[in-house]
Amino acid sequence: MALIVQKYGGSSLADSHKIRNVARRIAAAHDRGDRVVAVVSAMGDTTDELIALAKSVTPHPDAREMDTLLSTGELVSCTLVALALRAMCMKAVSLSGAQAGIRTDARHGKAKIASVDPTRVLAELKKGNIVVVAGFQGITGDADVTTLGRGGSDTTAVALAAGVGAARCEIYTDVDGIFTADPRLVPKARRLDELGYEEMLEMASYGAKMQPRSIEMAWTYRMPVLVASSFVEGPGTLIHEGAKMAARSGKRKVGEIRKRVRGIPVDKNVAQITLLGMKDRPGLAASLFEPLAEAGIGVDVIVSPVGVGGTTDFSFTVKRTDLAAALKVVEPAAKKMGCRGVVKADNLAKVSIVGSGLLDEPGYAAKMFRTMADANINIEVITTSDIRITCVVSEAKVREAAQALHDAFELDRHD
Amino acid sequence: MALIVQKYGGSSLADSHKIRNVARRIAAAHDRGDRVVAVVSAMGDTTDELIALAKSVTPHPDAREMDTLLSTGELVSCTLVALALRAMCMKAVSLSGAQAGIRTDARHGKAKIASVDPTRVLAELKKGNIVVVAGFQGITGDADVTTLGRGGSDTTAVALAAGVGAARCEIYTDVDGIFTADPRLVPKARRLDELGYEEMLEMASYGAKMQPRSIEMAWTYRMPVLVASSFVEGPGTLIHEGAKMAARSGKRKVGEIRKRVRGIPVDKNVAQITLLGMKDRPGLAASLFEPLAEAGIGVDVIVSPVGVGGTTDFSFTVKRTDLAAALKVVEPAAKKMGCRGVVKADNLAKVSIVGSGLLDEPGYAAKMFRTMADANINIEVITTSDIRITCVVSEAKVREAAQALHDAFELDRHD
Repeated sequence: MALIVQKYGGSSLADSHKIRNVARRIAAAHDRGDRVVAVVSAMGDTTDELIALAKSVTPHPDAREMDTLLSTGELVSCTLVALALRAMCMKAVSLSGAQAGIRTDARHGKAKIASVDPTRVLAELKKGNIVVVAGFQGITGDADVTTLGRGGSDTTAVALAAGVGAARCEIYTDVDGIFTADPRLVPKARRLDELGYEEMLEMASYGAKMQPRSIEMAWTYRMPVLVASSFVEGPGTLIHEGAKMAARSGKRKVGEIRKRVRGIPVDKNVAQITLLGMKDRPGLAASLFEPLAEAGIGVDVIVSPVGVGGTTDFSFTVKRTDLAAALKVVEPAAKKMGCRGVVKADNLAKVSIVGSGLLDEPGYAAKMFRTMADANINIEVITTSDIRITCVVSEAKVREAAQALHDAFELDRHD
Repeated sequence: MALIVQKYGGSSLADSHKIRNVARRIAAAHDRGDRVVAVVSAMGDTTDELIALAKSVTPHPDAREMDTLLSTGELVSCTLVALALRAMCMKAVSLSGAQAGIRTDARHGKAKIASVDPTRVLAELKKGNIVVVAGFQGITGDADVTTLGRGGSDTTAVALAAGVGAARCEIYTDVDGIFTADPRLVPKARRLDELGYEEMLEMASYGAKMQPRSIEMAWTYRMPVLVASSFVEGPGTLIHEGAKMAARSGKRKVGEIRKRVRGIPVDKNVAQITLLGMKDRPGLAASLFEPLAEAGIGVDVIVSPVGVGGTTDFSFTVKRTDLAAALKVVEPAAKKMGCRGVVKADNLAKVSIVGSGLLDEPGYAAKMFRTMADANINIEVITTSDIRITCVVSEAKVREAAQALHDAFELDRHD
């Protein structure tokens, strides 16, 4: 009899029919002999509707008030799932984030979990209850409600799984698992049976849907995470330590070295900003990135080629959705620095190859660039991490690039 | 600088336009120099919509889960009002019932307030905040959310007013105050400037909109309650101890004795059940009313005339909305008692005269019955309390009865 934590996303809970379906899946797990804690997101588009409601009252809603407002979405769905379970004669109880012991800091709208007090959840499990927990929310030391940011229910689920000592955390969503690439871009994309935490982190940062923080937390606590569909039966993708270990330890047959590439994430939410004729002086980059960080704008893929005559064209990428806000910060700063001008490009995208130990083998980078060249795709910028090589390319070419890479690394073939 | 508690009902908060209107009213009170705690109900029909949502999942939703579900309605409205106040550059903060210190027993769906811990509310007031509290809800010792029953926000407001030592509790609603009669039935009905607690209690039990428990609590703590419109400016009706005292102490001019009748409440939610040929034996009434009480059905206006030959036709009234449920209990019980049969009547209504000291003066009852006789209205049953005389009449005649009584007691004339 294992203790498992399941998480169901908003699209799995969009109406009362789907809520009953989720309840049936939870009940089935319980009937198989597991003790179940289910974490739920808000129904369908509830969160967006609540944001629109707040905006109808004020254009700039206060973060503390927004947190209490948004938290009601998950309170509604967790009580409805508990009711649906009780209607099936299961013992079930709903708990708010506060009741489930999710303690956070006070950064409203993007709170971090400080600790999980599992007392109440464990007590309800002991009574024989299925426990349905409102995801996405927690409570501060001052008893104020907080939310964990978009996709925060994933983090609630993993944190609870770690907190109650669950055997596994299961993330149920509207896709069958983690794919080698986005099937809408690459028709040959294939579901992965398993994946390491680090690999998943790179996949998630670059497209696949799971809050990166939740994967980091699962990694920290070595919590196995299964990502699977809430609509169809299927094995899903198991994210766990073993996956990486197996690949790294070289226990597999030699022919599999090529299969270290696990996926081809694509990110179209990319824009590039270039400062023309920036002086090559220490501290200038800092004076540019500090105000961007203050404005909450993340900066990525920074390129600063060696300039001629003491000046250089300095460029970096931001999320395309942050472009307007970023330019508001960058343009006055560039003027102050005496740059010749600021150029933006919003027709770019990123395509990456992800897999443990990629950088240990220079062959992967070479093969990636060769593939792109053969497909006649120009690479604007290249950036790498331990387990990822990313090319910034024209958005118009990114589908073709992903397909070519998927073929070149034979990702349609099973491990 | 007085500390006041204001309460706004759901119809005053039905959309973002009305929410901003409520915020303006709260801000105006604050600008007049008062410190303000505002208690809010759920927006418009939210509570009914949430009930429908639960029923779409299960026909018999669990009371504990329902309480958490329904409590979200007030969380939404209190955050929106706080946001609207902040948009007007007022310092404002929303609090849930739990945060506002509303501690209750664990009778879900109809919890009673056990205590009010005003610590947080007073701390927020001290910081200069307008405090917007989610009405209708509280929290048990086990940190479970409870609700106080329909109209429970009135009780939240009065309890908070008593808890924080407010000078006054103001109930803002969609009517201008308490009227001598329902203006839809009696066009000459007139707003009362003031009313005693006991009188209001009888008015509220028999039609006027305010949760009777809230009036009882106001009476206990001698908390003055102003009932007024949230839509138009107006003096409203002040419910306070002074009103009753003045009437009772006889300080007013003699001619006002007639004006002891304060209002003519009408109640159409009435049905009568009669057990034919019930044996006149001790304990039979108890064996009938005990199972009704267990089923949560309140019984009113009991008539047991002296029977002939040891049997009697025993009748009582219930709410018409409880009739079906009551018959389910009464019919088998009647069979067991050996009654000849059970007869129901669902075409009845109650019309009352209410005023302190009515029963001290036999003239009132006589005048009431004379008025009814002159209007050719048959009285089915009569029942009285210290400050109320009620006649059960045909529903078809109740409007005519209310108008005749309103004229007879000259309620259209000002005090």
